[in-house]
Amino acid sequence: MSTIYTSRELDKMDKRYRAKFINCLSGIKSANLVGTIDENEKTNLSMISSCVHLGASPSLMGMVIRPRSVPRHTFDNLKETKSWTINHVTEGLVKQAHQTSARYPKEISEFDAVGLTPEFIPGVFAPFVKEASLKFALKLVDILPIKQNGTEFVIGEITHVCLDEKWLDEDGSLRLEKAGTLGVSGLDEYVTLESLYRLSYAKPDKDLEEI
Amino acid sequence: MSTIYTSRELDKMDKRYRAKFINCLSGIKSANLVGTIDENEKTNLSMISSCVHLGASPSLMGMVIRPRSVPRHTFDNLKETKSWTINHVTEGLVKQAHQTSARYPKEISEFDAVGLTPEFIPGVFAPFVKEASLKFALKLVDILPIKQNGTEFVIGEITHVCLDEKWLDEDGSLRLEKAGTLGVSGLDEYVTLESLYRLSYAKPDKDLEEI
Repeated sequence: MSTIYTSRELDKMDKRYRAKFINCLSGIKSANLVGTIDENEKTNLSMISSCVHLGASPSLMGMVIRPRSVPRHTFDNLKETKSWTINHVTEGLVKQAHQTSARYPKEISEFDAVGLTPEFIPGVFAPFVKEASLKFALKLVDILPIKQNGTEFVIGEITHVCLDEKWLDEDGSLRLEKAGTLGVSGLDEYVTLESLYRLSYAKPDKDLEEI
Repeated sequence: MSTIYTSRELDKMDKRYRAKFINCLSGIKSANLVGTIDENEKTNLSMISSCVHLGASPSLMGMVIRPRSVPRHTFDNLKETKSWTINHVTEGLVKQAHQTSARYPKEISEFDAVGLTPEFIPGVFAPFVKEASLKFALKLVDILPIKQNGTEFVIGEITHVCLDEKWLDEDGSLRLEKAGTLGVSGLDEYVTLESLYRLSYAKPDKDLEEI
């Protein structure tokens, strides 16, 4: 039994109810931890569900930073250092990852607060999450302000990727469900992934095949 | 056993291998069908995996349109009519949804080509997918060109939402896994979702609870 909500019904919703409702609409979201560090070597870690693929060549990724809801420290740090890491959230990390969304004061690193370990590699200024097994680093390319709600669309180029090759298929695809990568629905529901199938490249006059 | 790929290794990858590899890195992506129509009432339907939540008040959503890989018709239509719909892909729709990514000429509607039904409701110019059970309409708010790779970040405001209330929790959250919403990994792998748990709102000095 389908119900239609118009703008009028959306406007009547209680603010928190509406936030949960609208946050679920885009569909399943990626669950990632963003690692940054400031010039004084204070690390920061925050949960983000808005990473989006922009292109493979150059390898660009975007994410939405909401100044009012995600700690501003992430944005300040990546603007200052031009460097951040993205670390996939898996089942063993999910409670610590979710806990990073608490509003810690600037002098407390979320790494310490939630019990995760900053890891540094040559050529990357920002810290990875040592406990994460699929992660990558980006350098700042551009920041597009979204004037309608004060969020920022941050664009980075991928410079380093760390992963276990056992999740890598022969054709370059990663088996995210084997790596234990989770998804997030709305603000607070975490989901595991199960592969249905892969489908062949679509052409107008050809039947699809499961591959 | 973890391997590190630097920009140098990424640059050496074969183009198709690299496209599959980089497309998997952001994590799980939402699987949606975008419905549009032109001023001559020719409908268009295309698969998109880059929908991203931008904010709940106003209710804004973004998506990345890649002129070279997604049919340009979607972009042309939404620019012309300021209207589009987003329809969640479920297991019963996935092959038809994937098939819309084939390069059909402008005179063929993907609705007809793949066997899905355009559905119109009062107040929304663009067609919904009748067979989809969780869907919403947007009006154009802004288009931000991403100059680094020629993609466009299209921002819309949600004006209408159609869903079955049995998927709606008391607090406004939607149970996407009950609605059968799928995710997509990389370019061609579809995944089903299974709820792990919901976690309580994180505060610095409070333990998280499964809710």
